[in-house]
Amino acid sequence: MPNPTAAMLVIGDEILSGRTRDANMHFLAKELTQAGIDLTEVRIVADEPAAIVSAVNALRETYDTVFTSGGIGPTHDDITADNIAAAFGVHIGVRDDARALLQAHYARQGSEFNAARQRMARIPDGAILIDNPVSIAPGFTLGNVHVMAGVPSVFQAMVASVLPGLTGGAPLQSQSLRIHRGEGDIAGPLADLADRFPDLSIGSYPFQKDGAFGANIVIRGQDGAQVQAAMADLQALFAD
Amino acid sequence: MPNPTAAMLVIGDEILSGRTRDANMHFLAKELTQAGIDLTEVRIVADEPAAIVSAVNALRETYDTVFTSGGIGPTHDDITADNIAAAFGVHIGVRDDARALLQAHYARQGSEFNAARQRMARIPDGAILIDNPVSIAPGFTLGNVHVMAGVPSVFQAMVASVLPGLTGGAPLQSQSLRIHRGEGDIAGPLADLADRFPDLSIGSYPFQKDGAFGANIVIRGQDGAQVQAAMADLQALFAD
Repeated sequence: MPNPTAAMLVIGDEILSGRTRDANMHFLAKELTQAGIDLTEVRIVADEPAAIVSAVNALRETYDTVFTSGGIGPTHDDITADNIAAAFGVHIGVRDDARALLQAHYARQGSEFNAARQRMARIPDGAILIDNPVSIAPGFTLGNVHVMAGVPSVFQAMVASVLPGLTGGAPLQSQSLRIHRGEGDIAGPLADLADRFPDLSIGSYPFQKDGAFGANIVIRGQDGAQVQAAMADLQALFAD
Repeated sequence: MPNPTAAMLVIGDEILSGRTRDANMHFLAKELTQAGIDLTEVRIVADEPAAIVSAVNALRETYDTVFTSGGIGPTHDDITADNIAAAFGVHIGVRDDARALLQAHYARQGSEFNAARQRMARIPDGAILIDNPVSIAPGFTLGNVHVMAGVPSVFQAMVASVLPGLTGGAPLQSQSLRIHRGEGDIAGPLADLADRFPDLSIGSYPFQKDGAFGANIVIRGQDGAQVQAAMADLQALFAD
């Protein structure tokens, strides 16, 4: 049975302008691979209502699960929650349980629970809150879309809150071999190997750095014995 | 006049599986911002023909320029050139000038110019070659799509070959201020500031690390004097 599929939508001008290097995608990719969920597409869009609505609708209709990161804080440029509600065509407003969580948190901190902070309790109708043990302001799940923060420590905590509730497939088995030859020298035998193991994914990832060059060959599949057999063949082909 | 827009398409299972952390997007984002071209959307798709064709067609119809990275090497999993040709509905085959470049390169190296390496001379009809001073195998430009390698050193060299030929807009001016207060405390005045400077983009990027927290406020715009004026207001608002 094929694994469930997932997509990620990163919302953030700061990534597209090159100001910030995104870290959440790489984190989520590793977590999903371990859980047996295939991350199949990622999109990064700007803080623009139309861009968010059209991307979230395209992705949620195509993939089993969608994760978003970014744009759920208290400032004027945090527009994700409103546009998720717009994408689903549902109402959004301050929700009592989210409001209570935040009110208690800021009371403990001695900070004012002002209008900006109350914005973080605005949740689309029908959503389920995602626990945020780091900074309390919750994410939410609406349909198959999990809406999470962009700050990496909070994003990671929210992924930990969401992942156990998802149905994964067989975790991917993976083995790799580093070969210090040009890809052009190994491409022929490698293609033959890929033909002999049609259930496996065999990728060649070239490197070229500081004068050294070659390729990392990665063999992936759900059947560990097959991965092992293909790796034995690969090692025999390119034994130095 | 608004700046020209660009999109990037990253093609690679190794990014989606979490094996590799993409570096090309962050590099390109910074280069385009400097050149006055707005990177507006990024997509990452797997090494799958249908995914590549539909993403490249969606992006080239929406944005002024599209950059792709990955999948133009000699191995069986390098399928980008064929699928760019398919997206444009044009023929692809070995081209004499690309073949001559590669043949001379491998002759100098004393490597065999075998069938796998000849694959890298397959170029869609109507394309213009992109110079690759690092490892010779060229990228290509077809219509508004620049097709480049995934290996970062080669990708960067190809960006350097392509960028001078593109028409940029006004480079974005940007200033930032780090504020050690919770976003909830600064959100109200910040929204007022954004209202007073409608031509500027004012973003708030929270951080939370090792017990310290706050936000980096970034003010961006094409008019340096306006950026300067808004920054002066911002500093006055949050002078500690």
